[in-house]
Amino acid sequence: MFSFNLKKTDGRARLGQITTAHGIIDTPVFMPVGTAGTIKAMTADSVRTTGAQIILGNTYHLMLRPGADRVHHLGGLHEMVDWPGPILTDSGGFQVMSLKGLRSMTEHGVTFKSHIDGSLHELTPESSMEIQKKLDATITMAFDECTPYPAKKEQAAISMALSMRWATRSKDAFIERPGYGLFGIVQGSIYEDLRQESVESLLPLDTEGLAIGGLAVGEGQELMFSTLDFTTPMLPIQKPRYLMGVGKPDDLVGAVARGVDMFDCVLPTRSGRTGQAWTWRGQVNLRNARHKDDTRPLDESCSCPACRNHSRAYIHHLVRSDEMLGAMLLTWHNIQFFQDLMKGMRDAISTESFNKFQAGFEATYRGGDIQAL
Amino acid sequence: MFSFNLKKTDGRARLGQITTAHGIIDTPVFMPVGTAGTIKAMTADSVRTTGAQIILGNTYHLMLRPGADRVHHLGGLHEMVDWPGPILTDSGGFQVMSLKGLRSMTEHGVTFKSHIDGSLHELTPESSMEIQKKLDATITMAFDECTPYPAKKEQAAISMALSMRWATRSKDAFIERPGYGLFGIVQGSIYEDLRQESVESLLPLDTEGLAIGGLAVGEGQELMFSTLDFTTPMLPIQKPRYLMGVGKPDDLVGAVARGVDMFDCVLPTRSGRTGQAWTWRGQVNLRNARHKDDTRPLDESCSCPACRNHSRAYIHHLVRSDEMLGAMLLTWHNIQFFQDLMKGMRDAISTESFNKFQAGFEATYRGGDIQAL
Repeated sequence: MFSFNLKKTDGRARLGQITTAHGIIDTPVFMPVGTAGTIKAMTADSVRTTGAQIILGNTYHLMLRPGADRVHHLGGLHEMVDWPGPILTDSGGFQVMSLKGLRSMTEHGVTFKSHIDGSLHELTPESSMEIQKKLDATITMAFDECTPYPAKKEQAAISMALSMRWATRSKDAFIERPGYGLFGIVQGSIYEDLRQESVESLLPLDTEGLAIGGLAVGEGQELMFSTLDFTTPMLPIQKPRYLMGVGKPDDLVGAVARGVDMFDCVLPTRSGRTGQAWTWRGQVNLRNARHKDDTRPLDESCSCPACRNHSRAYIHHLVRSDEMLGAMLLTWHNIQFFQDLMKGMRDAISTESFNKFQAGFEATYRGGDIQAL
Repeated sequence: MFSFNLKKTDGRARLGQITTAHGIIDTPVFMPVGTAGTIKAMTADSVRTTGAQIILGNTYHLMLRPGADRVHHLGGLHEMVDWPGPILTDSGGFQVMSLKGLRSMTEHGVTFKSHIDGSLHELTPESSMEIQKKLDATITMAFDECTPYPAKKEQAAISMALSMRWATRSKDAFIERPGYGLFGIVQGSIYEDLRQESVESLLPLDTEGLAIGGLAVGEGQELMFSTLDFTTPMLPIQKPRYLMGVGKPDDLVGAVARGVDMFDCVLPTRSGRTGQAWTWRGQVNLRNARHKDDTRPLDESCSCPACRNHSRAYIHHLVRSDEMLGAMLLTWHNIQFFQDLMKGMRDAISTESFNKFQAGFEATYRGGDIQAL
């Protein structure tokens, strides 16, 4: 059990604070993804300097390597990765479902082959809860099936119903601890009545928070937003809401405007390793030759070392030379930008100026690689 | 011109201080190598925390990418890489000589093809000086041929004589600036009379320091030490001595004992990217399965983040998972260890206890991958 304090609302945007066994999380929050027990190309110290309060770990990757028992022996994920703050782990469901041809699913759970050594493993609601406990997750996610997109309504209903039965088994298997929590996951694809049915199945479980799953899987921003438009009003006001796997900066702003409190995405880290930077103006491709003589910092308003200490030309050089420092600096910048963006939204909600913030953001931010930065 | 203050000697080991336009260098010193304008897998900030006072850049790599004119336009190497302290650049000679089949050498210089795009380039004593000036090198190295090993005496004599003519041309082309300096390079392979002849050719040039080239090229530690045994006594006492491309920790201790002041080597950075750590006990292979459940830090006495914040088991996990953080942490540790080793030697010389330090080092340090750490 942990507490969520909804401090303020501004339109549908919400300012809140979650108090956990491992510290406080100010919402709306973006959680950097540390798949295999590391935010790729960052030290834990450098992640902390960006203002990040919670990170994410992937159950699938960690159960295979180094293994849940080993993480437990090493003192849990917090101790192992030097992150005493809150950690959320996913259930492993999303990853094993994507192992097409390497997994078989029954009512009981999913059997799958490891992508590392081909060894056979099983994930069920019960084993997922057990593994996430060994990892010492502050926030444990219910085991579910992320309904693929597109899904016909009948498929989506069958998939959602399975996830709801698995949610109940997850809740039964989850061991309550003070300051720890379980999140149920709302499914139902883009269908309003299925989302409603899913929420109604989850409410009796009284989990510490509710996630919205099955979005950001190819449906596009418009359908994602329209699904949020009818889904967030179904959710209890006094619990945090987590939109899984989202997203681009404009996704985050639009989802906060629709009442979402928590996000995670590999975008800032993954794109940092391919020469991409995220800024208030949009996405910038540092591989592009136009940066080669540019002595300006990437973003004058940013406090990260990439912007504070270096020119765009230098980062361009590092990216072109495949130097690890290029990935390190751009990842750092991207994580910093995502944290700054969330802080900007929190500050705006606290002063009841979220509409103004959103209008300002949309006036400067452009999708795609921007050429005019 | 810059000053070298020989503060103390202890046997043949020397404690000194070089004062340059970009700051002070305490010797004996180890210079981390930043080949293409970055100490691989490290930010400049993190290199500074290890106590490093001077870093090295490679003329060959930098002239090809991003290009000397571009580095100059970006404010020089110090500004570009965020390293206001001293920087030494090599002459490019060593790298172009190793481009077998892609280069042709005449009395004038070396013509070669870029390994990046096959474009044709030329390096001569004059162009090497010009490029190093554009890079804004605090210490410029004379253009020379690193005599391959093994070399018959006649070959070694011909090669050395060419390097001496190139040294004179380097000196003539080098533009003196306060706080900047040029180093001549002694060649002559393992032949005492050739080394003597080389030193005598270089002395009239009155360069700010003298390097010992053509070692650590396959001759082994015994021959390297015996060559140092007769070469360092030939060198003027009042100039710093730089043993190029060296080396392993036991090479460094043995060379300081033989009167060497400066070193550079890719070993700590390169081996950090292949799972190797250097410690007071010897080299440790973190890929080895024996580390997988080991909760101890790599080295309890080390102040780097790898040792301060993490277990051997975690670093093993990162290395096995090919996570960038594994390379980042081990590189950081290795650079820290090499700096700590040099500081240990400087402290020992200052208290006239270098013999005791060396005996203590040799009593605990083992070559090869040690199993008993």
